[in-house]
Amino acid sequence: MTHDLIRDIFQSSFGNPNLNTFNDFAGVSLPFEAKMKGKICVSTDAHIINPIIFPGGDIGRLAISGTVNDISMSGGIPLYITSSFIIEEGLSFDVLRTIAISMNTAALEAKVQIVAGDTKVVEKGKADKLFISTTGIGWIPEGRQIGGEMAQEGDVIIISGTIGDHGIAVLAARGDLKFSTTIQSDVAPLNHLIQKILEAAPHVHVLRDPTRGGLATSLNEIALQSQVSINLEEDAIPVKPEVQAACEMLGFDPLYVANEGKVIIILPANEADAALQTLHERPLGKNAEKIGVVKKDPAKRVLMQTLIGGTRIVDMLAGEMLPRIC
Amino acid sequence: MTHDLIRDIFQSSFGNPNLNTFNDFAGVSLPFEAKMKGKICVSTDAHIINPIIFPGGDIGRLAISGTVNDISMSGGIPLYITSSFIIEEGLSFDVLRTIAISMNTAALEAKVQIVAGDTKVVEKGKADKLFISTTGIGWIPEGRQIGGEMAQEGDVIIISGTIGDHGIAVLAARGDLKFSTTIQSDVAPLNHLIQKILEAAPHVHVLRDPTRGGLATSLNEIALQSQVSINLEEDAIPVKPEVQAACEMLGFDPLYVANEGKVIIILPANEADAALQTLHERPLGKNAEKIGVVKKDPAKRVLMQTLIGGTRIVDMLAGEMLPRIC
Repeated sequence: MTHDLIRDIFQSSFGNPNLNTFNDFAGVSLPFEAKMKGKICVSTDAHIINPIIFPGGDIGRLAISGTVNDISMSGGIPLYITSSFIIEEGLSFDVLRTIAISMNTAALEAKVQIVAGDTKVVEKGKADKLFISTTGIGWIPEGRQIGGEMAQEGDVIIISGTIGDHGIAVLAARGDLKFSTTIQSDVAPLNHLIQKILEAAPHVHVLRDPTRGGLATSLNEIALQSQVSINLEEDAIPVKPEVQAACEMLGFDPLYVANEGKVIIILPANEADAALQTLHERPLGKNAEKIGVVKKDPAKRVLMQTLIGGTRIVDMLAGEMLPRIC
Repeated sequence: MTHDLIRDIFQSSFGNPNLNTFNDFAGVSLPFEAKMKGKICVSTDAHIINPIIFPGGDIGRLAISGTVNDISMSGGIPLYITSSFIIEEGLSFDVLRTIAISMNTAALEAKVQIVAGDTKVVEKGKADKLFISTTGIGWIPEGRQIGGEMAQEGDVIIISGTIGDHGIAVLAARGDLKFSTTIQSDVAPLNHLIQKILEAAPHVHVLRDPTRGGLATSLNEIALQSQVSINLEEDAIPVKPEVQAACEMLGFDPLYVANEGKVIIILPANEADAALQTLHERPLGKNAEKIGVVKKDPAKRVLMQTLIGGTRIVDMLAGEMLPRIC
């Protein structure tokens, strides 16, 4: 009965013709162009965020957005999502329904279909309320070559908006802040924004969503993958004053705090203004800034020109990352 | 460091060119025939089995086999697997490595590639050792119409081998049996066996792997989906004597015990012998039997001619299913 009830919650929230709850598979189509001239793109993520509902989002919106965004970082177009749920016995059906509806809303926003799902229930104390694993399936148009290994000397680095919002919002929801804040998570699907950027700036080299480990970790990974160094300008990096204040009180550096609705764009300098204009015209990109450039330097370091005029090495995060932030 | 170590375990166990651990997506190709004349097929499952290692298999082999089999039940050909891991803090790296190697072995057996993965670690007590969610991507050849809603009057029902092995093996591993047994789980990928069956018997109507809830639950689901009744012959249903004995001592009915390497095949009577011969020639089908027929009957019941000569209604499982059996 529990299983039927759970199935009903997902069935009624996700209702679409491809979600067949009676067979254990779904048959789906690919667009003609994808078949003729594309590559299939897949990505998967387990979501274990704590708490499962937080200011600006919940684990359902996070699961859809995170997977849509991972596909989008290839320059690809996400089409289908599968979702498997591990539910701790005792989780209220109201909470589950809220999260299922939120997933569906995010899927509608991204224009992706949830085509297959599975639910398992474990005994109380053997999981933490709800874990969601999502897999995305999409396609990459012919000739698109975007990846962390593609950054080149002279490229400009853009961030699509303010950093650290997600991490601080989740900490606030956990009660880990000793003060109240109005910060909301930025969790959002970025696929449409990214396709618009690629229309305006067709030679983008790298797209990366700075999630766990934040902007600093993502840029260090890219520097290693592309065998380049990166020079940042601290005063160009957008941080909300409330996030900056929370970070200062907690001893965090916003550069290392997770985002769930931001993208790093690395592209040839001559396309940077076109990309920035496209970003500024859209709500999800309105605070975008050019924050640095790619340098040829065998040290593969991320350096930052600081506000006080010095230069700082921005390392990989040495200590523990914030646990269960995504 | 933990994350790096975990990544190394999976990287070294799954090594294949499509598994890119540096970007969060993988680009993969589809065979020419799939693009021209097929449909994409997707399936997903969360695996929460307890214990994670049991006689005849482990959660890794189960995850690959279960997802390969779900794709195969469409008549489709599985190609790619994504896998996301939720690991409880403190799980030994040796156990994790054993399971990763077992996954890779099962993937090689099935000839599928693990193309994308994710690992998340949760605090001790917030998960139970290891959960694995897998998604399969494959394709369904043009014109193939196999599904639980396709059973027709006069069709013959075949089971590919003995029932209940998996469920009893897992109970034994939990120490829930008060006696020792040599029963091994049947967990195995069935994709190659099924393609061979479809060559021999091209008009198969239904394929279904009787996992949770066993043969009885699967047949009841099919009867409902196809709006038919099903008549079984108890003496034709293959059950290992050890499984039968364990079930009798525990008060279980093997009809309701889970399988992870068996398939129900429902097909026109004139193709049944060809399918059976194909099964008998292969290790995974050597104990296959014709166990019943499909009847036109608005009651949508599963009836069984019993060993003692009576007729019994085989209902949907009324009570609790064995928890965490897959």
